[in-house]
Parts: sequence; C-alpha cells; structure tokens
Amino acid sequence: MTELLDQLRTAVGDAHVLTEPADVAAYVVDWTGTHQGRALAVVRPGSTAEVAAVVRACAESRTPVVPQGGNTGLVGGGVPDASGTAVVLSLGRMRSVREVDPVAGTITVDAGVVLADVQAAAERAGRLFPMSLGSEGSCTIGGNLATNAGGTAVLRYGMTRELVLGLEVVLPDGRVWDGLRGLRKDNTGYDLTQLFVGSEGTLGVITGAVLRLFPATPRHATAWVAVPSVAAAVSLLGTAQQHGGVHLSTFEIANRQAIELVLAHLPGAVDPLAAPSEWYVLVELAGSASDEGLDETLESLLGDAVEAGTATDAAIAGSPAQRDALWALREGISEVQKVEGATLKHDVTLPIADLADWTEAMGPRLQEVLPGVRPVTYGHVGDGNLHYNLNAPVGRDDDLRAAAGDLTTAIYDAVAAAQGSISAEHGLGRTKAAAAASYKSDVEVDLMRAVKQALDPAGLMNPGAVVPPA
Amino acid sequence: MTELLDQLRTAVGDAHVLTEPADVAAYVVDWTGTHQGRALAVVRPGSTAEVAAVVRACAESRTPVVPQGGNTGLVGGGVPDASGTAVVLSLGRMRSVREVDPVAGTITVDAGVVLADVQAAAERAGRLFPMSLGSEGSCTIGGNLATNAGGTAVLRYGMTRELVLGLEVVLPDGRVWDGLRGLRKDNTGYDLTQLFVGSEGTLGVITGAVLRLFPATPRHATAWVAVPSVAAAVSLLGTAQQHGGVHLSTFEIANRQAIELVLAHLPGAVDPLAAPSEWYVLVELAGSASDEGLDETLESLLGDAVEAGTATDAAIAGSPAQRDALWALREGISEVQKVEGATLKHDVTLPIADLADWTEAMGPRLQEVLPGVRPVTYGHVGDGNLHYNLNAPVGRDDDLRAAAGDLTTAIYDAVAAAQGSISAEHGLGRTKAAAAASYKSDVEVDLMRAVKQALDPAGLMNPGAVVPPA
Repeated sequence: MTELLDQLRTAVGDAHVLTEPADVAAYVVDWTGTHQGRALAVVRPGSTAEVAAVVRACAESRTPVVPQGGNTGLVGGGVPDASGTAVVLSLGRMRSVREVDPVAGTITVDAGVVLADVQAAAERAGRLFPMSLGSEGSCTIGGNLATNAGGTAVLRYGMTRELVLGLEVVLPDGRVWDGLRGLRKDNTGYDLTQLFVGSEGTLGVITGAVLRLFPATPRHATAWVAVPSVAAAVSLLGTAQQHGGVHLSTFEIANRQAIELVLAHLPGAVDPLAAPSEWYVLVELAGSASDEGLDETLESLLGDAVEAGTATDAAIAGSPAQRDALWALREGISEVQKVEGATLKHDVTLPIADLADWTEAMGPRLQEVLPGVRPVTYGHVGDGNLHYNLNAPVGRDDDLRAAAGDLTTAIYDAVAAAQGSISAEHGLGRTKAAAAASYKSDVEVDLMRAVKQALDPAGLMNPGAVVPPA
Repeated sequence: MTELLDQLRTAVGDAHVLTEPADVAAYVVDWTGTHQGRALAVVRPGSTAEVAAVVRACAESRTPVVPQGGNTGLVGGGVPDASGTAVVLSLGRMRSVREVDPVAGTITVDAGVVLADVQAAAERAGRLFPMSLGSEGSCTIGGNLATNAGGTAVLRYGMTRELVLGLEVVLPDGRVWDGLRGLRKDNTGYDLTQLFVGSEGTLGVITGAVLRLFPATPRHATAWVAVPSVAAAVSLLGTAQQHGGVHLSTFEIANRQAIELVLAHLPGAVDPLAAPSEWYVLVELAGSASDEGLDETLESLLGDAVEAGTATDAAIAGSPAQRDALWALREGISEVQKVEGATLKHDVTLPIADLADWTEAMGPRLQEVLPGVRPVTYGHVGDGNLHYNLNAPVGRDDDLRAAAGDLTTAIYDAVAAAQGSISAEHGLGRTKAAAAASYKSDVEVDLMRAVKQALDPAGLMNPGAVVPPA
C-alpha cells in the first residue's frame, strides 16, 4: 500500500497523488449523487507516459483502476465502489490539443480536453466538431470516447464512435498502444479503436484521440414546434427528412411537463408559443455558407406539417439570440429536474416505429406503480432515444425512492419487449451492468466476457462496470 | 472426412455440397487469379440455421472454414489455401432483403445479397444506401461487411462499418449471435458489431445485417477536371470542401496513364477534354430535391480553381448520360488494367497532407527498381487513398512479376515512413497479413492475437487471413 503510493508519487509527483479526504471527495461521488465511493488515492498524471507508469504500478500490486474524465457520467461508471481499494485515475491534467489539420479534417487531442474546447479549436480552424451535449462545458473528450457519448447531433453526425479515427490507449499491463492514426481508411486488421470506444475504461485507459472534423455549418434555420402527440412528432420527422434532406441536423422532443419545469426554474426562460401543447419538437436545419434556402425549406416543411395536423403551432428563430433561447428550453431540462426534487433517470432507445405506442402505454402503466409520478420525457426522436425520466409526485420524494426498482423494471421490461435498448447513450457503468446482462442473450454476454478476459485478464480495469461479475 | 461430408449434406442438402472439381473451381480461385487454392468441399447453406449447422460440424471435426461472398476480393481473403483441408462456406444462396424501414432509415438483409440489390431496394423505398464500388454488381453485402469495404462514397458517408447498425453472426462454435438491432443508439457494452466488421471471416460468419439508409440525393452536379499535379488536386479538394460543404460527395483522382488505358480499352469511352492532362479529378456534389443551386456552386468552385491554377480545364455533365460517361472513365480503370497485361496492385492510404510529395517521390523510386514500369494511379483523394497500381513495361509482363516483391516493398516502406496504411479498403486477406504485421507495433499485433484467440480459440475460422501465424 505505502509502496504503491510511493510508486505513484514517483510517477506523477507528490502534488498529483491525492489521499486527503477533502481533496479526494469530488472524485468519488458522481454527478447524480447516487454513487458515493471511496478510493485508495486519486492520481492525476500529466502525460501518457505517466498514465502508463500509474497503470503499471497498479497492475503489479493488483490494484483496481477507475479512469475518470470530467465526472459527468450518469451511470456510476467513473467513480469507485465503496471498498476503498481502487485508485481513481483522473485524466483532467491532460488538456492539450495536440494538432489540428483542417485539410485532412482531423484534430488530435489529449483525453482530458473538455468537449467545448475541442469544439472551439475546430471552429478556430474553420471546421466543425459536431458533438454537442448538455455537459459539454465540463465533460472531457476521453470520457465521451470511453462512454461513446451521444447528444443532439447524433441524428446527422452519429455517436462518438463515428467521430473518431484513432486512439492512444494505455493497456491494463501498462503498455501503450499507439493507434493515433488520422487515416480515414485503414483496413489492416481488427478495429481496436472501436473496441475501446464505449468500453468505459474496462479494457484500458484512453489517453489521446484523433477525431474527425466536418465542414462548418454557419447557417441555421430553427423552429420550436407544438405537436399534439409522439405519433405526430414521428410523422413530422418523416416530413422534415423529406424537405430537409442532408440539412436536417436536429430533431428533439420534450413533453409539456419538461418544459414547465424549465419555465419554472430556468432564469429568463419564456414559452415561445401562446398556448401550451402536450409535446414539443425542436427542429433545426444546418448548412454551409452557400445554402441560402434553409429558412424557406423550414417554412415549407412546417406549412405541410400544420396542414397534415402533425404540428399545431411553431415559432421560428429570427436571430441567433432567438435560436439560443429555443435551444435553452431543450438543454435546460436536465439541470432543472434536479431543482424540482428526486428524479429517476432512464435513457432508452425504441425502434422509431414503436415510439408513439410505447410512450402512450407507458404513462398509465407507471401510474399503476406510483400514482402521481411525473414523467419528464425528452430526447432525440430521430434516434429513437428518450430520456424517460421521472419526477416524484409533488412533495413525495421518498415515495419515488421506494418505488424506484419497480418503476425501472416496468420501463426496462417494456423496452426489452419492443427490442429497444436500456442504455441509448449513457453507457452501463455500475448502475446498469447487471440489468443489461439480464436482458442480453447468453451468447452476447459470453462474447463480452471473452473480450474482457482477453484484454484485462486480471480484471483490474474499472471492475464492476459494463461486464458484471460472473 | 466422409462423416463430415455426410453431416454437411444433412445440414444443407446434397445439391449444396459441391466436391466435383468442375463445380468447385470457381470458388477456389480469386478474382485476380493469383490465389489458386483447393477445398475439401464448397458448402452453400440457404439459411442462418444451416450456416450454424455447417460451422458446428466443421468445429467438431476441427475443419477450417473459409467464408466467401461474391468472391470479388483482391487480397485472397475469401479463397482457401492449397492444402485442400478447408471447407468453403459460400453465402451466395442467402439473398433475401428481410425488411426495409424508411422511417427508421434501416434495411435488414441476408449476407448474400448483392450490393447493387441493396442499393436498388433502398431506392425503391425513396432512400439511399450510399456504398458504391466497381464490383457492386457481383460483390455481396456480407463480403463488404467482412472486409469493411470502401468505394467512392466514403468521403461523405464513410466506410462500410459506418453504414451498419447490427449484425447476425455464426460464431466459431456454431452458436448464433443475434445482434440484428436497428437502433441508432445502443450503448450496452462492447461494440461487437464493429469487431466483426472488417475481421474477414476470422472471428465468425456474418449471416445478416441491419444497414443504415440515408436521404435520397436525386440532384447531382458533376465535373471532370484537369489538374496539373497531385498537389493541385489536394488544394482543389480544400476549395471543393469550402464551396460544396455537406454536398461534396465525390472527389476521385486518376492519372493520365489510367485514363489512356480506359480510352484504349473501354468501348465508347471518349476524352471529355481537348488536351491531355497529367492528372484528373472527378468531383461531384449531391443534394436533395430542394437543393437547386448545385450547378452554380460547382461552376463557382471551378472558376476559383482555374483562377488559382489548381485546375486547367473542366467538363461539366449537362445530362444524366453525360454524368454516366464521366463516371465510366473512373470506374472503368480496374477492369481495363487486366486487359493491358500483368498488374501489381497496391491499395494505400497516406495522410492527405503528404499525398503530393509521396506520389512525386514514388515515381522515380520505382523506375530505379524496374525501368519502364507504368504507375496506373487512381483513387479517393478525399480519403487519402490511392490505388497505386503498376502495369508492366510494355510487353514485359515477366519483368513485372520478377520485380514484384521489390516494387511492393519499396511502396510499403514509403507508406509506413509517411504513417500511412498498406491496406486502405481491400483488407489483409492472405496477401497482406504478414506484411501488415511487420509494419505494426508488437503491442498492436498482440492485441489482434488476443482478440482472435478469445473468439476463435481453435483457430479454424479463415486461418491465415488477417492475423498471421505466430
């Protein structure tokens, strides 16, 4: 123990091995506050070589390692368990943008660079790094990669795994795999990059990445649309795809309950429409400087939608400030839910064709489990992804906590019955690892275990996350 | 042996177990004619369950299995070695399009569906399956997936791995992994789908897939552009990206030698430009029905290019027939090379920034190795991918064959020195497995071996491909 701490201090410097409870506190509890763990130490290496030295020392003493980025995860994947036996390996000091190559369309970054800083570096080079999340001001790209993060740009640009070309990874034995290739095409064997993306630190520690950049889309046409139902929203999605084609970049949904919370708790939030609606859609078209017809396209698609009855009203942003205000309604939801009291989060995907029926059936089903429970539903219709969150009945937080297991089981069972996914974009972490395994086939769980065993035979990398103990 | 053949006949029916030399012949030699193998039998299952029965029987008798799609591969990955101990498992009878879902944007297919049939099914549903290859009329989607095929649409839509959402795979022990999920987002563990894509049948047999569909792009603006050099082509790429933004869908290059072969050997081919040029670029913008300004955008980008000296002349397609004629110049290259005599193929990626210098240096270097050798160079500039093929000096095919090893080593060494890839889109197969391993780090080869060992411990799936014997 003392020997390991000495090795860690030698590896990264005394100042970067934290053991005092006050120093360690912020690293051992997750953003939701539901995972409170303990750690042997928090280590903050400043380079790939230092990460390798830390992992090697931990491997030699058979000490579990929990890699951590911005600690904004929602499933307890980045914080240690309560045993106090693990070292938290924080990548937060590795913040260099190593290279931007606008012609190749690549940016090479340290794992600890904050997502918003990656976006800004791309913009300075006249390019777009499209990933966009509520937590983009504090989450790190390494965490985004480790969890295969989603966000509001998935509809057009895909998940994180579609935005990465190469990785640098410290393996469980402390060796460094240099896969930092910025090549768009490299068909020379198994795709190790994609194996590490989404593995949540259970196969190694991502220390650097080459990411894809895209043509900038300086032009936007944005509308906040009242829609009568989820079915109408899905139908509107088809209309938007037909009119918008490649320009359709955003298609987000939120229910009235979610927007009421935003209007109540987010300073400055204003309802852009005169009458309340059961559901809303945020739709955006994005294009290059030469795409001058986006506003007309948006107006024509909304005209068709109103005529078809899939939209009842809409507010179109007339300025960048108005666009920001519409986006704030959508992006404020996650934060304001916390203010409102106890919440229970679910991040699910349904086949888009089943989205409406599923949502329709789920509401009454949950009222049976806990009368008065308030679904705060929002998400990414274009991806079939709902953040199907629940707020407690007004003033009855304890009832929600008591019914949490039953509510989650009801939701997951319905997701599984519809061939959906119980984690669309948040990963499994410690919260969902066992549940996910229980809904998967034995064959699939065996495959995951075989991969874990092959790359981390000692089982020291983020134990308990993703692959549940046998 | 007889026992295995009996089991195979029971599994798939007598008519679909081929052992007569005349029946087997077409399955044991590759498209290039350089890999002539032998097989215990060729088995043609008609369903996933039959594939599973075949693989199980082979596993029990420890018989190697070589999966085969359309047998259009260029690196000997789909044909057996000369030992005659392997069973060729042809997916050619599994040709059903299982489902098309235009709203979700997915198509579910058997592995044996020909690529052109996937494209056609998407088009009938008003959607686009963008993958496009020279061999699209005979290659199968299973082969595309197994090799992570590229083609001319990668610039905008990505490699095959970016077009797939889920797979059905028969594992080396004959169990079936049903990962046929059409969900855009499913973050519930390791990405097994991406592990199988590009594994060339060495980890299992892909029997079905859910693929992504995209908005149709009925509008095109297409030009054949004379450019003075590779450096000019790379510069023109930047101009095309700036003007074309998201609409830029094609940016292909070819040298004069390649086009001269097409003009000589492709019936009806006509040079669209008055004067010959050292290099040519095929550039295309594609858009939805509402994108009415593509022609103007193309003209303006070409105007800028001529002014900047990165283009010297251009022919713009004024009709679909003219567009087809321009595309035929590019797509005819591979076939006409065969007519011209002995060829030596290389499929390499370079960082785009190094493409010009690399090509400039490579020509003289190869003349030192074999004076008179004729580089027939073409490929996908936007991906940094050159098909750097060599035709023999006129009338001296034997000299090319004799110098093949030295020529390839010279090219691969130069690719490795520039941090490129020796297989951009053709995979490794048997031709390149050892070479790829020799240019990779020990860490990376170890990782590949660990994955192979984990999923195929008996080493029976397509042995010798991708991962060379230790």
